[in-house]
Order: sequence, then C-alpha cells, then structure tokens
Amino acid sequence: MSISVSARAEELRARVEAFMNEHVYAAEEAYKAHTETADDRWSIPPIIEELKAKAKAEGLWNLFLAEFNDYGAGLSNLEYAPLAEIMGRSPIGAEAFNCSAPDTGNMEVLARYGTEEQKQKWLIPLLEGEIRSAFAMTEPAVASSDATNIQCSIKRDGDDYVINGRKWWISGAPDPRCKIMIVMGKTNPDAPRHQQQSQILVPKDTPGVTILRPMKVFGSDDAPHGHAEVLFENVRVPTSNLIGQEGEGFAIAQGRLGPGRIHHCMRLIGCAQRAIELMCQRVESRVAFGKKLSEQGSIREDIAKSICEVEQARLLTLKAADKMDKGSYKDAKDIIAMIKIVAPNMAQTVIDRAMQAHGAMGLSQDTFLAEAFAYARTVRLADGPDQVHMNSLGKQIIQRYAG
Amino acid sequence: MSISVSARAEELRARVEAFMNEHVYAAEEAYKAHTETADDRWSIPPIIEELKAKAKAEGLWNLFLAEFNDYGAGLSNLEYAPLAEIMGRSPIGAEAFNCSAPDTGNMEVLARYGTEEQKQKWLIPLLEGEIRSAFAMTEPAVASSDATNIQCSIKRDGDDYVINGRKWWISGAPDPRCKIMIVMGKTNPDAPRHQQQSQILVPKDTPGVTILRPMKVFGSDDAPHGHAEVLFENVRVPTSNLIGQEGEGFAIAQGRLGPGRIHHCMRLIGCAQRAIELMCQRVESRVAFGKKLSEQGSIREDIAKSICEVEQARLLTLKAADKMDKGSYKDAKDIIAMIKIVAPNMAQTVIDRAMQAHGAMGLSQDTFLAEAFAYARTVRLADGPDQVHMNSLGKQIIQRYAG
Amino acid sequence: MSISVSARAEELRARVEAFMNEHVYAAEEAYKAHTETADDRWSIPPIIEELKAKAKAEGLWNLFLAEFNDYGAGLSNLEYAPLAEIMGRSPIGAEAFNCSAPDTGNMEVLARYGTEEQKQKWLIPLLEGEIRSAFAMTEPAVASSDATNIQCSIKRDGDDYVINGRKWWISGAPDPRCKIMIVMGKTNPDAPRHQQQSQILVPKDTPGVTILRPMKVFGSDDAPHGHAEVLFENVRVPTSNLIGQEGEGFAIAQGRLGPGRIHHCMRLIGCAQRAIELMCQRVESRVAFGKKLSEQGSIREDIAKSICEVEQARLLTLKAADKMDKGSYKDAKDIIAMIKIVAPNMAQTVIDRAMQAHGAMGLSQDTFLAEAFAYARTVRLADGPDQVHMNSLGKQIIQRYAG
Amino acid sequence: MSISVSARAEELRARVEAFMNEHVYAAEEAYKAHTETADDRWSIPPIIEELKAKAKAEGLWNLFLAEFNDYGAGLSNLEYAPLAEIMGRSPIGAEAFNCSAPDTGNMEVLARYGTEEQKQKWLIPLLEGEIRSAFAMTEPAVASSDATNIQCSIKRDGDDYVINGRKWWISGAPDPRCKIMIVMGKTNPDAPRHQQQSQILVPKDTPGVTILRPMKVFGSDDAPHGHAEVLFENVRVPTSNLIGQEGEGFAIAQGRLGPGRIHHCMRLIGCAQRAIELMCQRVESRVAFGKKLSEQGSIREDIAKSICEVEQARLLTLKAADKMDKGSYKDAKDIIAMIKIVAPNMAQTVIDRAMQAHGAMGLSQDTFLAEAFAYARTVRLADGPDQVHMNSLGKQIIQRYAG
Repeated sequence: MSISVSARAEELRARVEAFMNEHVYAAEEAYKAHTETADDRWSIPPIIEELKAKAKAEGLWNLFLAEFNDYGAGLSNLEYAPLAEIMGRSPIGAEAFNCSAPDTGNMEVLARYGTEEQKQKWLIPLLEGEIRSAFAMTEPAVASSDATNIQCSIKRDGDDYVINGRKWWISGAPDPRCKIMIVMGKTNPDAPRHQQQSQILVPKDTPGVTILRPMKVFGSDDAPHGHAEVLFENVRVPTSNLIGQEGEGFAIAQGRLGPGRIHHCMRLIGCAQRAIELMCQRVESRVAFGKKLSEQGSIREDIAKSICEVEQARLLTLKAADKMDKGSYKDAKDIIAMIKIVAPNMAQTVIDRAMQAHGAMGLSQDTFLAEAFAYARTVRLADGPDQVHMNSLGKQIIQRYAG
Repeated sequence: MSISVSARAEELRARVEAFMNEHVYAAEEAYKAHTETADDRWSIPPIIEELKAKAKAEGLWNLFLAEFNDYGAGLSNLEYAPLAEIMGRSPIGAEAFNCSAPDTGNMEVLARYGTEEQKQKWLIPLLEGEIRSAFAMTEPAVASSDATNIQCSIKRDGDDYVINGRKWWISGAPDPRCKIMIVMGKTNPDAPRHQQQSQILVPKDTPGVTILRPMKVFGSDDAPHGHAEVLFENVRVPTSNLIGQEGEGFAIAQGRLGPGRIHHCMRLIGCAQRAIELMCQRVESRVAFGKKLSEQGSIREDIAKSICEVEQARLLTLKAADKMDKGSYKDAKDIIAMIKIVAPNMAQTVIDRAMQAHGAMGLSQDTFLAEAFAYARTVRLADGPDQVHMNSLGKQIIQRYAG
Repeated sequence: MSISVSARAEELRARVEAFMNEHVYAAEEAYKAHTETADDRWSIPPIIEELKAKAKAEGLWNLFLAEFNDYGAGLSNLEYAPLAEIMGRSPIGAEAFNCSAPDTGNMEVLARYGTEEQKQKWLIPLLEGEIRSAFAMTEPAVASSDATNIQCSIKRDGDDYVINGRKWWISGAPDPRCKIMIVMGKTNPDAPRHQQQSQILVPKDTPGVTILRPMKVFGSDDAPHGHAEVLFENVRVPTSNLIGQEGEGFAIAQGRLGPGRIHHCMRLIGCAQRAIELMCQRVESRVAFGKKLSEQGSIREDIAKSICEVEQARLLTLKAADKMDKGSYKDAKDIIAMIKIVAPNMAQTVIDRAMQAHGAMGLSQDTFLAEAFAYARTVRLADGPDQVHMNSLGKQIIQRYAG
Repeated sequence: MSISVSARAEELRARVEAFMNEHVYAAEEAYKAHTETADDRWSIPPIIEELKAKAKAEGLWNLFLAEFNDYGAGLSNLEYAPLAEIMGRSPIGAEAFNCSAPDTGNMEVLARYGTEEQKQKWLIPLLEGEIRSAFAMTEPAVASSDATNIQCSIKRDGDDYVINGRKWWISGAPDPRCKIMIVMGKTNPDAPRHQQQSQILVPKDTPGVTILRPMKVFGSDDAPHGHAEVLFENVRVPTSNLIGQEGEGFAIAQGRLGPGRIHHCMRLIGCAQRAIELMCQRVESRVAFGKKLSEQGSIREDIAKSICEVEQARLLTLKAADKMDKGSYKDAKDIIAMIKIVAPNMAQTVIDRAMQAHGAMGLSQDTFLAEAFAYARTVRLADGPDQVHMNSLGKQIIQRYAG
C-alpha cells in the first residue's frame, strides 16, 4: 500500500505554486481596486487578462481538461486535484489558469457532447480564454437540488427551440466577456422523469435574454463575476444549438457533478489552507493582554483543529478523485457525496476561526477571508444543500450494511 | 420564586410589536431599494425618517434611556430587554424607535457625564432624532479589545485639545446625519494604565477629520449606515469638549459595556427568533423530493435545536439585565460576559440553519437572513472576540470555586 | 418583569444545601466502599439509611410532593426545582431526602390515583422511606419511547389480573428494599390506541416475577440500585391492584412525565454544576508543562463554555417548572421537550470536559464524574431518545409559526 | 499520484477479516459470559486461548512486529494499519492475533533494545503468546502526559536496582498471565531533564510489587484485563534488568509512541466502523412512530456524518503510517499528533450516535458499543489528553507558517 505522486503531476504542482507566488497573490489587490474604483464595477480588471496571458505562455492552461487532445492537459482527477487546491488559494487563481467554474464544466460538456460546429463556435474560444460562459440551471420557483424539478420550457418550433423561464444564481452571467450560456430546461414534460430535460446553447445577446439583477451573497454582488437572475422570454435559437439529444439534459448534468464537486472542494481546501497560514502569521505578530496571540492555548487549539480538518478533507477529496479515475461517477457517488458534505463545512469553520483570530479585520475587505467564507457558504448550497447529500449518503450506507 | 412582567413593560412590548407589524417590516423593502437605486447610496432612505416620526408620535421613542427624566422612558434593563429583542427583528427596527447603536451608548454617556452645554448641543438633538453620532474607539494598529491599548493621542494645547490617530470600524460615521463623534484616546500616556485615556466630543466636520473608506463585512459596505475608517490629523477642539475628566475615558467606556451588550444580545435574539419563524414558513411551503421540507426529520431537529438555543439565550440575557438592575456592572460582569459569548454565537448558528433551509435565497438580498448573519458575526468580534471573554470568564469562575 | 424567590423556597434551599455539605458528600465514600467490599454487592449500605433518618428528623423529607397534605411539602415545581438541583449534586443526594426516582413518580401516581387501600399499603411506607418501588414500563422488544407500543399483557381473570411480559431497565428493581412495582401493560388491545394500556401494582415477591439480570451502563451494574431485566410469567394480582381505571395507563404515564423530567433535568444540572466546581479545583491545583492548568487559555474556555451552558439550562428548566405550575402539562409540553433535549446533552458535555481536565482519574471511581456521566448519558435515552423529542418539538414550532 | 495496496497486505487483510468473521465475533459472548459467571472474574476465559491457538496455526500472528526476523511479519506501518483496524472491531480481536497493547509496545522495545538474555526470558514467551506483560509509566501524583514528570525512583544498589513508586492505569497488570512489567522511573534526578528516566524489567511476582486495586472506567473494571494501581516498595531487581542504558528511558518511551498511536487509532477506527454497521442494521430493523428508523432523515444524517468522519480519520491514519514508514517518528510527529487528536474523538462521537440509535440497549452489555465507547474515551486521555497534543501541534503549525 502506498500513496505516491506522478512526476508530471509533481512538476506541474511546483510550477503552478511558483506562478501563484510570483504573480497571482500580488495581483489580488489591483483586481479588487479596479472593481472599487472603475466607472463600471462590472468591467474586467486588466490585471486578470495579463495573468491569463502569462499562464498561457507558460503552458499552465486548461489543466483541468482531461480529454480533447490539443487543448486538454490529460491529467487524471487525482493529478489535477492538488493543482485545483493551489489555484483555489486565491479568488482569482482559477481564472488565471483558465480553470474556473462554470467554464470548466461547460468546456467538458462541449468537449464530450458538442457537435463540431458547437466546438468551433464556443469551445475553442473558451479554451483560448477569449470568452466566458454561464450555466443556467437553478430556478427560484423550485427546489433545484432535485434537477427533475427544473421547469424552464424549451419548445421545438420548426427549426428553432423557444425558451421561456426564469433562472437565478447564474454565475458569471453578468461578466461582459460571457458570451454563451448553457440552459437547462424541459423539452418534453411528458417523458419519464429523468428524460424530460435538455441542455441548449443560448448566446447571451439573443433577444429575450434579460439579466435582471445580480444576486448578492451576504450583501456583496461579487462583481465583476457575479451571480445573476436571468429571464428568458421567447428566446429563440436554432435546433442545432441543442447539446446531445432531447431528453439527455439530466444525464449531461449528472456527468459534470463529479469533477465539478472535486474542483470546488479542492479550491475550498486551498482557501482553508491559506486561511490557516494567514492565521498563523497573524497570531505570531499580534499582541494582546501582554502576550503574543500565538502563545495562547485556545488559539493553538483552533489552529490544531483546523489543520486536522483540512488535512482530512484533502485526503478524502484525493481519494474521491482517485475513485472517479478508476471507475465511473456512479462508483464514486458515495465518496463524492462525502466530500460535498465535508469540504464546504470544513472550509466555513476553518475560515471562521481565522477571521476570529484576525479581529474585525478578518471580516473586512483587507484579507481574502471574507470572500473565501462567502464562497464556502455558497457551496454548502450549490448543487443541493448538505442535507440532501447527507440524506442520500445515509440511505446508501444503510443499504450497504443492512440491505 | 417567580418570573413576572410589569404591566407597563408588557403594554410597551405589545405596542412595539404592533408598530413593527404594522409599519417596520413593511418598510424594509423600500429602505433597501433606496440604497440600491439612489444616486448616492450613502443618502438616507426617506422611509426611515417617516418611521421615526410615527414612532415618536406614538411615544415609542428613546425607550432605552433609563434616566434623564424628560426624555428617557425610565425602564429598567429587564423591562427594556424584550423591547430591544422585538426591535432587533428588523435591521431598521432599532433606528425607527431612536434606539439604535451607537447613539444609545453615546446618549447614555452624555446624559450621565455631559456638561449642560454638551447636553444642549448634542444630547438633545440626538434624543430628538435629528442627528446621529459615532463612537470612535477601535484602532487598526492595536488589539482594541484591551481598551488600554488605544493609542490615539489627545494633547492639550492651550484651550484646545489636538487629536491625532487612526480609527476603524466607526459605525455610523459615513451616515450624512452623523454630526458628532465621541473619540477615545490618550491624554496622559504616563498615567497608570487605566487612567491614560479620555473621551472627547469631535464634530464630524472638524478640519482634520477624514472618512477614509467604508469597512466592509463579507464584501458589503452596509450603506447608508456603514462602518468607516477615519483619520484624525491635528484635529483641534476646545477643552470644553472633553467628557468628564482627563483619565476617565476607560471608566466611561466600561460603563457603556453592560447595557450595550444587553442591547446587542437582545437584538440578536430577535434576529434569531425571526430567522426561526421564517424557516418554519419556508419549510412548510417548500416541497423537495416529493414531500414538504417541514416533514423531514432533520429539518425539524434543526428547528428544535434552534428554538432551544434561542430561548436559553433569551433567559440568560434577561437574567443579566435583572442582575444589572439589582447591582452594578461589576456585580453582573460574569453574566454579561456569558451573554456576550452565548448570544452572537447562537444567533450565527441559528441564522445559518435558517439560511440552509432557504436554499440559495437564504444567502441573498431577498431575505433579512444575510444581513442578520453579518450582524451576528460582527458582534462576535465587537467589544473583543469571544476568546477574550471566555478567558476572562473562565478565570473568574475558577477563582469563585477554587480561589 | 422580575425573577424572585419565595422566602420558604430560599430557606429550604439553604437548609438542603447545608445538609448536603454537612452529611451527604461526606457519606459518598462509605456508600461506595460498602458496595465494593460487602459480601453481597446488592445489599444496602447502612450509611444511606442513616442519612435518611437525619433528613427526616430535620423535616427535609418528601419535598418533591406538592399534594397529599400530611406528607407533601406543598412546593410548586418552581420552588422544588432548585432543591432537586442541589440533591442531584451527589449520586446519593436525592435518596437521602426521600426524593429519588422512580419512587417520586410512583408516589405522585399513588397520591393522585390510588385507592385508600393502595395508599395505606404502598404510599405510606414509601413516604416514610421504609420501602422502595419500581416502575416497569420499558420493553426490549419495542420502541418504548412510543408508549403505545408497550406489549405486556394484563388480562382480567375473575377477580384477578394475570400479567405476562418482559421488561428491562427497571430501575431500583434489584434493590432489596424494593417491594412494589407499578407495571404498565395492555388490558385491552382492541381499544383506541391511547386507551389500551393500564397500570397495575405488582408486589415484587408475587410468584412469576423474576429479576433476570442487571442491565449495565458502560459495564457498570449500578449496584445496589440497579436497572433490571424482569420477567412476568402468569403473574396474578387482585383486580383491586389496578391504578385508576382500565385504559387510563397511558394518561397516567403522561402525567408523570412533566415533573419527572424537571426533576431529572435539575439533578443533571446539579451534576454539571458540581463537575465545573471540581474542574476548577483540579485545574487550580495541577501543574503541567510548567504552569497551572488554570492558567491555560483552553481550560478557561472549557470552563467558560460550561458555566454558560449550565446557567442557560438551569434557567430554561426553571421556566419550564414555572410554566407547569401556571398551567397543565399540555401547556408546558414544548418547554418540557426543550429541557429534555437540552439538559442531558449539556450535562454529558460539561462532565466530559471536567473528566478531560482530571486526566485518567476523571474516568475512574475516584471522582463522581464517571457516575454522573453515565447518568446523563442514560437520561438522553430515558423517556425516549433526544431525536424523538426534537422531532416532536420541531413539529410543534413549525405549526406555531407556519400553521 | 496513486493510492495502492501491496498484494501481501491485501491477502493478509482478507485472511484476518475471514478469521474475524469465522471465529472472533462468535467468541465475544462466551468471553463475556465467562467473566460474568466464573468464580474468579479475573480468570482467563478459555475461549481466548483457543482463538490464539487457531490464529497462530494459521500464521496470523505477531503481524504488528516489523523486525525480529523469525517472529515479526515484516509489515510496514502502512501495511499493518488496515489489519489493526479489522482486529479493533472486536474487544478481543487484537489479543486473538497476539497483537494487543501493551504487549505490542513491550515486544517492540525488547526486540529493539533488549539484551539476548532479556529476549530469551521475556520476548520469546511474549511472542509465543505464553505470557502477557504491562507497562508501568503513569503515576497518580503527577501529570504523566509530560513524561519528564515521572517520579518513581530506580536506585542503583550494588548489582541491583531498587524501585519505589506508585503507578496507576497499568493495563493488563491484573491479568493472571501477566508475568513481566516494564517500569519507567528516575535513575538520575540530577541529569538533564530528558535523561533522568530509565526503563527496567520487573517480574510481577517480585517482592514489594502490590496490585492495589483495579481502576475502573465508568464503573467497569474491565476484567480480566483491567487497569491496576500498583505499588512498588523497595522492589529489588538485578541491574541486568535495565533496558538499554541509564537515562534512555525517555527516548525509549518516545520510540513506542508512533506505532502505538497508529495501532490505537486504527483499532478505534475499527470500533467506529463496526458501530456504524451495527447502527445501520439496527435502524433498518426497528420501527417507531409508524416507520423504520432508517427512513428518518435525522438518522440518515447521523450515519452520513459518521461515515464521513470514519473515512477521513482512516485516511489520515494511513497517511501517518506512511509517513512513519518513510521517515522517523520526528518527521511524522505532526501527523501522529493529528491522529491522536482526531481518531479517539471521532470514535467517541460515532459510537455515541450508534448508541443513541440503539436506544437503552446501546448503553448495555448487549452490544459492544459501551465497551468501545469506554475505550475511545480512555484513549482521549492515554498518552496525554487531547489538549496537550493540540497545544503542541498548534505550536508546530504556527512555526511552520510564521516561523
């Protein structure tokens, strides 16, 4: 029995880490400052495009993509996971390497199910980092954690589909570079429950698409990326925009869950790890009531608990990645549920402790903690709240041992 | 042994509740909309001034103030606490009744220590709800939970004091109605540790006072109230602006802690109580995986735990209020520390559960939960992080039983 | 609003406390030593009978009993609760004052529902402390937290009832002084669900009653009190032994839940409070790694959290007692559920922390902590596991706010 | 990067598992019954010797021992760890395979530091499973988690050492098969702090050795293994009984910590894993309030949380084993501290949940849960309480990131 690392993965890890140290952390302040001071807070900070250009030049680009020979890095989930962790340490890390959600999932879907035309038109520009994209699934009116609840209608009308529906929490939709959305809706309400939905490509500038408002998280609109409420009113696209076949929407959505969750969890582990490191630096430098915070037993306990939790979540996520690599999403379903339950909660808790050690600064714009906290909190709800995953995991485990 | 309620307190409770039901909750949306859409997001939503006028007309005004005959309501802490809870149920509740921090603490200080001139100039307008105020204590450079660390300098120069220092998290300072700040700083760095500080009145428009930026909490600037970073550069005010005597700053600051913490805790209990109620309504109306959320065991457990925690924190805070009423802050110091530890944590936890039951909406601007969460999270750091209070409480308890 | 204490309750509190300090704590070692060294570990340590005689002589006797003029103390639940807390501080405290379960519940049932003959034969000797009793309800074969599941059969046969069934966790049944059991079983399996059960008096020496074995908790048999598995095989008692009417068993059982839970919770609060006090003494006297444990921040935090939790649980239980006094069990049902959820969990947690601060001694027979822990752990299951109460409380709260 | 298993380890895992399924679980009841019914509860249940004979015959014997060619299995820590987990699933599992503490640590010490004479006299009989042993380190008078506190005196007197001291929690000392103790004490109180202690072999029947009493855990004496308080009064042994050199006691003690903790943690993970499996079977078979417990959301959440926690602790412990294999104890010190913090707490929590799902039976002698709970609770204190490890781990982490 052994835990080992491929030379290629280790080499990439070192290079990504070096890139983060050299370029990314240093760019965080400029990125934030742009949004604070620009005339249009939804404009794109030039610094991020500079970072992308550098990363691309260094070949640290599209590392998430296993397939699609000319573009993907061919890494297994287990190889990519540690890279995702390192990228996740900065709110702008993943994007710098063209590895940020929801583009990653969208690119995977296009690489796997797209027609040649769809790939040329949308996948290549995404892989080149020229445009961005959104995935419009969640709806305000229904419990979207059960994807079969999705109500948005996609009706065939001659050579077109006509789309009507209201979506929210559409991440990246307000981004001016976002040109294309993958929309999930019902093509056939009378089909069996898991075959009613389809996925379809909708260019953002199609008539009838309205970005209603940015959804806020704890009062922050997360500009310039953002999470929009979007209205689709009689939006008409050609039938060639359908991804795969009618009725395959649910299956395609399932397919992106495994890697998507691993990526989110690893990024959150990166957030939590960085939070611990910041916490250590803070408590070593801060004095209260006559001694360094780092000498206080309760601070040390907080740090000890945190490192234990991070390391455990990391190992669990790596094992999930390994299980995905060795089998299908179905084989790894239980452990994917586990990481979905464990990692966001862990990250929220660890970051909360780091905030506490920073005093009021920990809540403010002066560290990355508040943003990371909001990210962790959000992922506890994204793809369904913890409760849904615990319920389904518990059921599986009972079946395994008492079935 | 009995737990009973005075007729007057019960009558006021009923009237405040009715006012909330009739006017305040209904005004929340307009208040928020103003800040979203106004040209200047730091302008004051007219609706809040309308609410204040109504509350004043009904005599539901300055209820927090025990003393100062013509203006105060003469309620004990134990009588006022349930009113603070009800007001706390809305982010705009306390202000509607002219009972919001930091004005309450500032008014108490002025009523107790102010000269006649200070009262006429600042206290009366505050009591009338014509102006607002700030309390400038916390500094970025030092662990301000230990008030003796405060470094801001207040130097006597002839008939003036000259103030130099940098403060942050000065709540309400950006509010255009804020006209006066109580600033804490050192008049005598060579005095014994608890006699170095003084408090002084500084009109916000005094030359040398600069509002540098709004501090954000989870990325939100909390406009139009806000929490500012403020620079004091050679700010000159007449010596008659000093509150009390030189060296009394620490003692005056201590005096506001007891009632201040009771108010914050009761407001947070109101937040948590309302969060539970919203959660109940949500889970009763929402269906997922074929049944109402309210029928799921884990949801019921979350609600059961939450109500147990809210009720316990409420009783503890009421007992703290009662102990304050029957003795001094010193007598109640242990139980005041207890509520400071218990209530914000409880509120954060309960609100987090309510968010979870709301799905992504729970994080957004569409409920009061995100704002309430940020409030609870903030109070876990205000007046010193939990850890400081636990440490000091633990020490007291050890002395009591093993001294 | 005020929290006050009747003079009589305060006077009794002081006297019970003095009795504990003077007699009870000092007797704990002799009590334990008897069980360790006696030929028969199920024989009764003489010291407990001496304590009882003293308490009776001082009039500190049957304080739990509200009614039954000549014997009961006439205290309200709110008045008795603090006494129960103090008694609960020692494993032999309640018995010393003739206030221990299950006798208390049995005496209340007999006082309320017993015939004159039943009272003379069983209630008076119980009130005099001459005999002890058991309550045989829980059955191994069914989830007994739902009392309607009870299967034991009680069949009328001429002037007798014939009882057949298997019960376990029958506390006090192995005690040689235990002379009488109240047995719950079905007299009419065809009646509506809540009218199938009856309660009946069964002298322990009735033919067909077999004490099968002591049930252990964490490997300890809790001699000489114990919790037995008991077999009833064709046990025949006269019809005059029925308590109340046929079919009233469920209702009578419900009636003992309110006070019973308050008593258990207050005793557990006493356990937890004493655990904190022991913990304080331990950490003040113990040195590790060069400093007193009491100077370590994490120890202080543990103590601070513990005192917060104890005080909150105490206030909640007092409020529950007050609500019981002012209304019926039904009115207080929600808050009784709350204390049942809160107090045993709190006690388990607090005692666990105190154990930890004691090192290995904390687990051993050398402090009262291990016994108190087992008591708290047991009560988390007695009268139904926490989960049952949380589920039912959650349901009530949802109805209240969203009904 | 990959996580893989050696063929030999996998084969042994399968055989140990088969042996457990075929022989060990089935023997648990007979083992317990012997202690309940034998004249001497400290006599050895014959069934355990039968199990040992079978395991030895199958070559499933001394698997823990890496070195000592003819006897040890030559497994790495990472290979042995999963076997320890499986053995840990039964309270009699480890002993059946001659892999139980404290013999394992004692055998390792003798194999590594013992003289030829010491090996012949004590190690071979231990490896053959003919005798058992104890490790006498912890003392009631001092905080023994800091091994330099150990006070027991070992004084050279001619060709003998004379030992005086009081030890407690000496596991296995009451076992009639226990023939030899390794005693830790001070040979040179004036040496530098980490060179004052030595370890020495003391046959249990040496004059002056008195087994004073069994220490109980939650009231249980854990017969026939037990944990004794032992007095050493002028106990005289030849100098050839010294292990290693004078002053090496601390270093030798450190050397057993790494593997010892890995073994304990893996056994506890086995306990927790089995607790989950029992819990699943229980909830699937039990009906309350009209539905199977397994259909209740909160039960499923408990199981989901538990499996997440077990799997994480398992991965962390495997990684710790791997790090031990690839370096020294010093290299692995941080992660060994992590598992010491994580695994016992996790096991206590998971087992507590399983108890709760079993109702009162979960606390009783009718499942293995109570015994497993006590084991987990004990390990939270063995080798120093959690707090000590958290403090030291926290300090290391701060140094790593802010040093």
